[in-house]
Amino acid sequence: MVKIGILGLGTVGTGTVQILRDPVGRHHLLQSIEIQRVGVKSIDKPRAVDLPSELVTTDLDSIVSDPDIDIIVELMGGIEPARSLMLKAIAHGKHIVTANKAVIAKFGDEIFTAANQAGVYVMLEAAVGGGIPVIQPLKQSLGVNRIQRITGIINGTTNYILTRMTVEGGEFADILADAQKLGYAEADPTADVDGLDAGDKIAILASLAFGGRIKRDDVYCEGIRKISATDIAYADKLNFVIKLLAIAERVESGGVSVRVHPTFVPKDRPLATVNGVYNAILVEGEPLGQVMLFGPGAGAGATASAVVSDILAIVGVMQTNSSHEDAVNSPNTSLHPLLSCSHSHYSEMAPLSSLRSSFYVRFLCIDVPGVIGKLGTCFGEHHVSIESIVQTGFQGDRAEIVVVTHEVSEGDFESALAEIRGLDSIASIPSIVRVL
Amino acid sequence: MVKIGILGLGTVGTGTVQILRDPVGRHHLLQSIEIQRVGVKSIDKPRAVDLPSELVTTDLDSIVSDPDIDIIVELMGGIEPARSLMLKAIAHGKHIVTANKAVIAKFGDEIFTAANQAGVYVMLEAAVGGGIPVIQPLKQSLGVNRIQRITGIINGTTNYILTRMTVEGGEFADILADAQKLGYAEADPTADVDGLDAGDKIAILASLAFGGRIKRDDVYCEGIRKISATDIAYADKLNFVIKLLAIAERVESGGVSVRVHPTFVPKDRPLATVNGVYNAILVEGEPLGQVMLFGPGAGAGATASAVVSDILAIVGVMQTNSSHEDAVNSPNTSLHPLLSCSHSHYSEMAPLSSLRSSFYVRFLCIDVPGVIGKLGTCFGEHHVSIESIVQTGFQGDRAEIVVVTHEVSEGDFESALAEIRGLDSIASIPSIVRVL
Repeated sequence: MVKIGILGLGTVGTGTVQILRDPVGRHHLLQSIEIQRVGVKSIDKPRAVDLPSELVTTDLDSIVSDPDIDIIVELMGGIEPARSLMLKAIAHGKHIVTANKAVIAKFGDEIFTAANQAGVYVMLEAAVGGGIPVIQPLKQSLGVNRIQRITGIINGTTNYILTRMTVEGGEFADILADAQKLGYAEADPTADVDGLDAGDKIAILASLAFGGRIKRDDVYCEGIRKISATDIAYADKLNFVIKLLAIAERVESGGVSVRVHPTFVPKDRPLATVNGVYNAILVEGEPLGQVMLFGPGAGAGATASAVVSDILAIVGVMQTNSSHEDAVNSPNTSLHPLLSCSHSHYSEMAPLSSLRSSFYVRFLCIDVPGVIGKLGTCFGEHHVSIESIVQTGFQGDRAEIVVVTHEVSEGDFESALAEIRGLDSIASIPSIVRVL
Repeated sequence: MVKIGILGLGTVGTGTVQILRDPVGRHHLLQSIEIQRVGVKSIDKPRAVDLPSELVTTDLDSIVSDPDIDIIVELMGGIEPARSLMLKAIAHGKHIVTANKAVIAKFGDEIFTAANQAGVYVMLEAAVGGGIPVIQPLKQSLGVNRIQRITGIINGTTNYILTRMTVEGGEFADILADAQKLGYAEADPTADVDGLDAGDKIAILASLAFGGRIKRDDVYCEGIRKISATDIAYADKLNFVIKLLAIAERVESGGVSVRVHPTFVPKDRPLATVNGVYNAILVEGEPLGQVMLFGPGAGAGATASAVVSDILAIVGVMQTNSSHEDAVNSPNTSLHPLLSCSHSHYSEMAPLSSLRSSFYVRFLCIDVPGVIGKLGTCFGEHHVSIESIVQTGFQGDRAEIVVVTHEVSEGDFESALAEIRGLDSIASIPSIVRVL
């Protein structure tokens, strides 16, 4: 039997215990797994699973140092004490399975360095895309390709909000409030709506796809707070939907770009049809072409499915390598090269200004007769080629003008915009959204 | 170095060689793989890859018995000599990677029994869904779920034809002829358009999903020859598209149903948006929910990507287990339980008549005034509950009547139809299509 210790018994922890204690009809290897200890904050809290009391403890330190335990399953979330407990478990020669994207995105280098030294695995399928198998395919089957780009809808809360804004025509603040009431958004929605959660996840995917670590601070994150019903309506008129995309790509001029921002997505693209809390990850590689993986991005069952699949992957390797006891405790073990993450260098990052993008920009203007000429001149002087400028109507006494650019240098676009912001006739620039 | 022998140098074989000989920017493990021999039918045929002449041979037997070779990559297609060569290679203790769905669907029991005895792997990611990772996720990450159903669009040729019929409104025969001209359909299209290729593939998926072997003869296969422009137009009017679905599911009354047939798919389902030569596989499991995997179902690059990912998976295990030499040659080897297929019993099959389905039926009738009543009576007497009967127009002097049933027993529906066929007022029944 392989013995596991679980840290955290929230919804995902409970889902994980439920799968492990009900193995019939699932992979036969699940029957070789035994839950040794479960660590919780409060013993007395009522639980959806009925665990023998001797299994449950509030002493998390005793779990990560328990000599009988082979695998620690970290499902507490948050940075601390998750990070310290994982490091301690690694120091005790235990493999790690985690759903904690934040701690991996921010302290992945520390954790993987320690794990590689200790000869243990750190598995994180559940950290990205809930139940969608994406981490393991990237390590393994998709990894034979030269990955060019990963484009993901990997935050369910923002996709739920944008989908409702599209379907109902409502404003961001109202739908966020309703999503909070319904449990689709947290009381503090920052991590989701400002793109930080998606940033954590795309940093992890980029690291796997391009074989180099990614500094979390190098990931550009722009959320959806500024998207208004007006923008959604314009997008629709132009045959687009607005999605919060997380993108990791090799840039032609060199380096890797990893970023999160709202994006106009043409309605006929597969990603445009991903609605509600669903997630999707589009992987483009050579010679593969495009593969899209789609499914529930969150939820107890889906996430627990990914957690247990990671436990299974470790158990599979342990059972193949018959000298398992030695293997786990020796730093010289040859780890399975399709499960471990052995790269230790950092990917070279391409600055945002080196990218080329198309933009949708909405201006509110004072001096209508002259303003279109001024906008055209400003953009032109900065080599920003324009596809269309349309005066679309009025918001109060401000004339509304929508500009869509061709694909231009982000740097040039920024310079043009800086100059335009200084024009007397421009009252404000309520929205700037990239176009796929 | 792990040494491989490749049987067949067609488009997929060529694509495989191209990936292996150009490893930079791909998984680092590819650099541990060496092509030892390549077997072809004709030495002199011009090739897209330039291989040293000492690597290429027409003596395929010498490859499968070459003591230096660890893995045989079978990319010849067809039943023989592929089957015999694979068995011979297994007898020589070699692992197998194959893209050959036909030989696995028909002789999988023989091949897997031999492989399990010899302690070698038979890998077949490329046999289903081209470059889409589906076999390995089913063995591994998705396998922790109780799989309830797999629904696939897994034949690119028929999906291409149905998509063009939907977009252009053309008839099956004309579009098939054009598809043959363009290389999207074979000169002999039987395996594709009669659902046999999809039948081979769904048999493989069902075997993995439900952990029991599937007799290929037990897979019900109905193709798309009878689908007419008229049916496509009715489907559209009713808010459906017609897709050739391959379905494997656990049936409530017991057993497993594995079948291929054209199906009305509601337009708002993810599978309805899968067009052209693309493939998609929808996996439903507990507690996961629905995951859909989407991508190119064929083509040299996509299929070669899957072939090389299988080679990589074997190399990964070989490099983890340091006592590899012994392992390969000993029947007592513990195979990696997430790569091997160890089940040897057959799944209990549910007969088609035990299923419940909705049906769309189009009748051409002689005696219009009385016929709707007669149809209603006949269906009613056989417990077939009807959602709608509509006389939709005329084809020549025949009145066209379209019936859509509720979900009914397939057996009851068949009995009703047998009686209806005997009615004087029914001239013909041009189409019967199941409704999802």
